[in-house]
Amino acid sequence: MLLPQINDPQQLKSLSVEELAALAEEIRRFLIDKLTVTGGHLGSNLGVVELTLALHYCYDSPRDKMIYDVGHQAYVHKILTGRQDRFDTLRKQGGLCGFVKRSESEHDVWEAGHSSTSLSAAMGMAMARDLKGEDNRVIAVIGDGALTGGMAFEALNHIGHERRKLMVILNDNEMSIAPNVGAMHNYLSKIRSDRHYLRAKDEVEGLLKKIPAIGGRLAKTAQNVKDGLKNMLVPGVLFEELGFTYLGPVDGHDLEKMIDTFHQADNVSGPVLVHVLTTKGKGYKPAETDFYKSHAISPYKIESGQSLKAVKAVSHPMYTEVFGETLIELGRQDSRLIAVTPAMPGGSGLFPFAKEFPDRMIDVGIAEQHAATLCAALAMEGMKPVYAVYSTFMQRAYDQIVHDICRHNANVMFAIDRAGFVGADGETHQGVYDIAFMRHIPNIVLMMPKDENELRHMMKTALEYNDGPIAYRYPRIEGTGVTADAELRCLPIGSWERLRPGDDYAVLACGPMVQLAEEAAELLKREGIQLSVVNARFLKPLDNTMLLELAHAGTSMVVLEEASQAGSLGSAVLEFYAEHEIYDARVHLMGVPDIFVEHGSIKEQRQETGLTVEALCARIKAMKALSTYTYKSTSNS
Amino acid sequence: MLLPQINDPQQLKSLSVEELAALAEEIRRFLIDKLTVTGGHLGSNLGVVELTLALHYCYDSPRDKMIYDVGHQAYVHKILTGRQDRFDTLRKQGGLCGFVKRSESEHDVWEAGHSSTSLSAAMGMAMARDLKGEDNRVIAVIGDGALTGGMAFEALNHIGHERRKLMVILNDNEMSIAPNVGAMHNYLSKIRSDRHYLRAKDEVEGLLKKIPAIGGRLAKTAQNVKDGLKNMLVPGVLFEELGFTYLGPVDGHDLEKMIDTFHQADNVSGPVLVHVLTTKGKGYKPAETDFYKSHAISPYKIESGQSLKAVKAVSHPMYTEVFGETLIELGRQDSRLIAVTPAMPGGSGLFPFAKEFPDRMIDVGIAEQHAATLCAALAMEGMKPVYAVYSTFMQRAYDQIVHDICRHNANVMFAIDRAGFVGADGETHQGVYDIAFMRHIPNIVLMMPKDENELRHMMKTALEYNDGPIAYRYPRIEGTGVTADAELRCLPIGSWERLRPGDDYAVLACGPMVQLAEEAAELLKREGIQLSVVNARFLKPLDNTMLLELAHAGTSMVVLEEASQAGSLGSAVLEFYAEHEIYDARVHLMGVPDIFVEHGSIKEQRQETGLTVEALCARIKAMKALSTYTYKSTSNS
Repeated sequence: MLLPQINDPQQLKSLSVEELAALAEEIRRFLIDKLTVTGGHLGSNLGVVELTLALHYCYDSPRDKMIYDVGHQAYVHKILTGRQDRFDTLRKQGGLCGFVKRSESEHDVWEAGHSSTSLSAAMGMAMARDLKGEDNRVIAVIGDGALTGGMAFEALNHIGHERRKLMVILNDNEMSIAPNVGAMHNYLSKIRSDRHYLRAKDEVEGLLKKIPAIGGRLAKTAQNVKDGLKNMLVPGVLFEELGFTYLGPVDGHDLEKMIDTFHQADNVSGPVLVHVLTTKGKGYKPAETDFYKSHAISPYKIESGQSLKAVKAVSHPMYTEVFGETLIELGRQDSRLIAVTPAMPGGSGLFPFAKEFPDRMIDVGIAEQHAATLCAALAMEGMKPVYAVYSTFMQRAYDQIVHDICRHNANVMFAIDRAGFVGADGETHQGVYDIAFMRHIPNIVLMMPKDENELRHMMKTALEYNDGPIAYRYPRIEGTGVTADAELRCLPIGSWERLRPGDDYAVLACGPMVQLAEEAAELLKREGIQLSVVNARFLKPLDNTMLLELAHAGTSMVVLEEASQAGSLGSAVLEFYAEHEIYDARVHLMGVPDIFVEHGSIKEQRQETGLTVEALCARIKAMKALSTYTYKSTSNS
Repeated sequence: MLLPQINDPQQLKSLSVEELAALAEEIRRFLIDKLTVTGGHLGSNLGVVELTLALHYCYDSPRDKMIYDVGHQAYVHKILTGRQDRFDTLRKQGGLCGFVKRSESEHDVWEAGHSSTSLSAAMGMAMARDLKGEDNRVIAVIGDGALTGGMAFEALNHIGHERRKLMVILNDNEMSIAPNVGAMHNYLSKIRSDRHYLRAKDEVEGLLKKIPAIGGRLAKTAQNVKDGLKNMLVPGVLFEELGFTYLGPVDGHDLEKMIDTFHQADNVSGPVLVHVLTTKGKGYKPAETDFYKSHAISPYKIESGQSLKAVKAVSHPMYTEVFGETLIELGRQDSRLIAVTPAMPGGSGLFPFAKEFPDRMIDVGIAEQHAATLCAALAMEGMKPVYAVYSTFMQRAYDQIVHDICRHNANVMFAIDRAGFVGADGETHQGVYDIAFMRHIPNIVLMMPKDENELRHMMKTALEYNDGPIAYRYPRIEGTGVTADAELRCLPIGSWERLRPGDDYAVLACGPMVQLAEEAAELLKREGIQLSVVNARFLKPLDNTMLLELAHAGTSMVVLEEASQAGSLGSAVLEFYAEHEIYDARVHLMGVPDIFVEHGSIKEQRQETGLTVEALCARIKAMKALSTYTYKSTSNS
């Protein structure tokens, strides 16, 4: 066994290619064994075992900067850089991060989680290197899926123009999370299928020699013919035209060929793109044959790849599933309904909808900006698009939401999944900012349901609403198990629901926090405190009537939300009272504090940020103590 | 004269090409005459006179959808669609919008202001058309500069994949606002310079015939050779590889050739890209020879093109200029300082810096996302990047600011220009959201100076700050004329300034609103009201000490800001008091209400939204009346 002895990538240098290949198999076994227990991005990492080995064999990390796009495929990099023994803690609170993490190792030079940032990072590092007069290498590893993200193209455009020395490894596995779409994908497929022609290169050159030598006024034309032929000989003409030297395609599981190609790349003075073909899930049958599921997995049975979660009965459907099913119901009622997803058809629960309405399900690839503006145009032409997107990825479309959707007041629906904490994916994926970055945009309606049944009504409400953009956000958790109403109905825009009466203390909560509030109310009842619970299901507009009632009744309020405390619902409530010049309203805020919350379980993340039943009870009791005190001190003055 | 008779594009159909050419000259004259008085995007519109005529001649607006990217080049379109008589009101409050505007005309089908959205819009409209079973044409006109924006590539990738019938007109004038940069630009230049080879197409085909016919195992190879040659014959191979049919390049001032090409394009079943070469400022010498200045101009002298603004003495330097000059000062002191701009070197005042430090000024093209992430990487490698960007365009980089800059806690500086109202550019360009979309992001420091001298100190403060991202925002107006301190100094992070004492009423203002507050204080003084003025120069973190003092003194406060009232400074102050459980603080909000504020002068925009000295005085007096009343009612209870 070689693997247990490797704790620094320098140790690879003394190995033979055969030993590297043996090590690759050990790493593969290690990954399969460990991820059986912890879950994680198995397929992506099985695909890059040889690639990562070849990189660390040829280059000197951390002097040479290795930048992994997204970073979910960096497990092998972590194994080779001294973190083997921490894999039991993968994606657990306080444990190894599922992405690249600078605080974990000097070999981790760039963090991500969202895709398509690696080329910009590489350009920045290459530029800084040149300005400092240093000579280290900069290497970005990017998947073919991530390459379709607009910012990756912005970076390609800049890199190809400046022509600094840097290396882009295009890790082409024909997949992002879902099978890739887009013209770039078609282009790469063409290169892949053309591979056998490459062998004919010599023959083509022989053929070229048969063209008679041309002089005179056709000489220039003849030269152009030869340039044209070069385009055919070099499959990556698209990258070549953008200023890159293209090398490949090379088999990403053939160590020797990759090492050769990297040496070739080293001799290129400007930017070089090495096209590496890998197989996602390589070496593990269940992962190789079911690409989609193997992207990010829960703990599973090693022989079959069957999820342990699937084995254990799941008690309630996830919000995502309820969304997917209800969308079909609505799609049957209204033929204008179209679903748009930026490369997340599965994660967003859209596969069943796509099966029933293949023409009305649009996967645009990793392209959050385009997806948003596309929805605006579809809406203007009378369609009813629903932009299904994770809260964290919607951040990419902020400008398009402002400029193209809300300013046009287009009838776009937003299905914002993964709102609130997301658990193991951690700080790059938390869905805690969307209220704060959408609430100030004119024209938008913003909702969050207290349970999966209310989500269904909100979806109906959104479909029937024709006055502009409207969004519903829901968490990455199971529903409450409530019975679904047979009939879908529209909620009055801006209407909250008082679930429990009470005049002294009220919790204004949204989404899963409503359930927490209910539990707290039950506990406090035993101590003689009557806590009113309000389902603040509209985040914009607010329920003005109820807010005025609460203030007039002298109710002390807690706004409880699994969202950035700055700028979200609590903030909106405070603004409401200030705008209405009501100064005796007592509003307490309980939201996500001003920090990035790291990976762990959603429960742990709530504990870390004080969004628990216990914390809420404590807060209400403290308010009670304080109000008694304040009342006294006011009387004394 | 033909022009006065044209009020509907259908009238063009009966004209001959010669008459169209004559009309083009009339339109050119019209533009030059009108814009002398109003100012506006002269150069871009002079460049597309024939192109717009050819489009309206060949297609049927509004049935056929004409989508103008950005929309600043749609003046000719406006002239041809019945709006000639409104050009005296161009970009004035209540007047003709400087961009496409749906409320102005049925021929205006897509609004923009920010670049690179037209391809997504075209795709959405083509998709809706197909779903509805209609057959209208969809035509997007996009400049070569806008094509570098990431979302344009996301759209190309999607369009090329789905292959729906739509037409992209690439209006290539070798310029965005500044001369273009990027590999795409280089690629287009190559096509342009290769134009004369196109004439040899027939000759090349003759040449090809000389290649002996090949059979057997080389047959496939021979076919590939022919495909390779096609790449040479078709200059737009990059677009062809992405699934488009490429036509061109065609002279955008030759009506006959353009009309021919459009007819050719009509026969293509999938997406087609027509590459049209135009000259910005065509037909008006001052605009042709100074591309950069002719993009958007102030009223000017017709013979020389000299701005009337330059003729009239400008009283104080613009904030932008002070930024540009101070950056040079700082650049001399610190060689790590690098300026990054997304295609706005001039607008951001960076030309002098670029002249002195050509290696430390990076124009990435229209690529706000890439620019932000590039800055993160530069900072991580020890540089001191300043991301110089307009508030409104920074919206495009929201995710990168969260995910790449703030989450990494990278030492990136932001120079946010055009913060607040922007005047004639109107609703698409207002810089009123940046506080609201940045304030909730952990790790960032956010500042706004009360005058240009304080801007200089803030720039120094930012450069010396090494604990993460830090931003200063400043308006699109002249400075106050204050004398600049010789020595630059660092402001304590989170420190506000009390400019006028007073216990009963205080205005917490930032930026130019401080001056308004001072003026109001002077007026109120005459009426015996002592108004305290606080320069709330840090928007994050706030000055906790001063906020506590104000509350303890029982001061009634107005937060005055030229920024979205939802989520900005006022909201932060309210949150502060709620978090500190201070319930007797009286905070009034005066900010930009929940609407998109249209074009006009900045003064008019402030009037429209109640951000004036008069409104502030009225508010303070109302507060005084109310507080007397409230005091009484409290005493009675």
